[in-house]
Amino acid sequence: MSGDDRHPAIEDVELTDVFAALADPVRLATVRTLAALGASPCNELHDSAGLTVSRSTFSHHQKVLREAGIIRERINGAQRVLTVRTQDLQTRFPGLLDVVLRQCPESDPAN
Amino acid sequence: MSGDDRHPAIEDVELTDVFAALADPVRLATVRTLAALGASPCNELHDSAGLTVSRSTFSHHQKVLREAGIIRERINGAQRVLTVRTQDLQTRFPGLLDVVLRQCPESDPAN
Repeated sequence: MSGDDRHPAIEDVELTDVFAALADPVRLATVRTLAALGASPCNELHDSAGLTVSRSTFSHHQKVLREAGIIRERINGAQRVLTVRTQDLQTRFPGLLDVVLRQCPESDPAN
Repeated sequence: MSGDDRHPAIEDVELTDVFAALADPVRLATVRTLAALGASPCNELHDSAGLTVSRSTFSHHQKVLREAGIIRERINGAQRVLTVRTQDLQTRFPGLLDVVLRQCPESDPAN
């Protein structure tokens, strides 16, 4: 759970940091998609999440999520592979990911 | 659960709206204190939460929380009485209030 230059130690992450990072529809969709896919190269994640933002904007959103302790980036050759820090988040903020990943009525096209 | 001029219907509140409202230490402390106290006049809440912000700043934070569907204001004579919309939030975002109200290690003075 300790951090490195690019990933905060989860015990240093505040709940308000996580809320700020998730207070954006693109970042929320990114986390939901990444959690469903498991470890994913960032290009594939961009396409899978059905995002209309540019890749550079998406890169910014990734940085916000990484700095808030929500996702982890790992360099694999020429690719950056992303994962949700599921265990870290569950330890630090039990139940938070369940709230984030639960499909809400807002996602129901009937509404 | 329906809204009025000053309070959104809970079904119109998005998770990102709630996260944005809670992404602030003063607002998070306000919700935690109000949940512990139950219905409270806003002046008493300000003092109980041990806040160092001015009353006008606190009034702004209340507005953000109200517009995000998190708290309800009721006029009672010369007072505004506040409550957390516990049931509405639990229905719309099950588990979210539990995450918010759980005491985190960040609040432990030993850290």
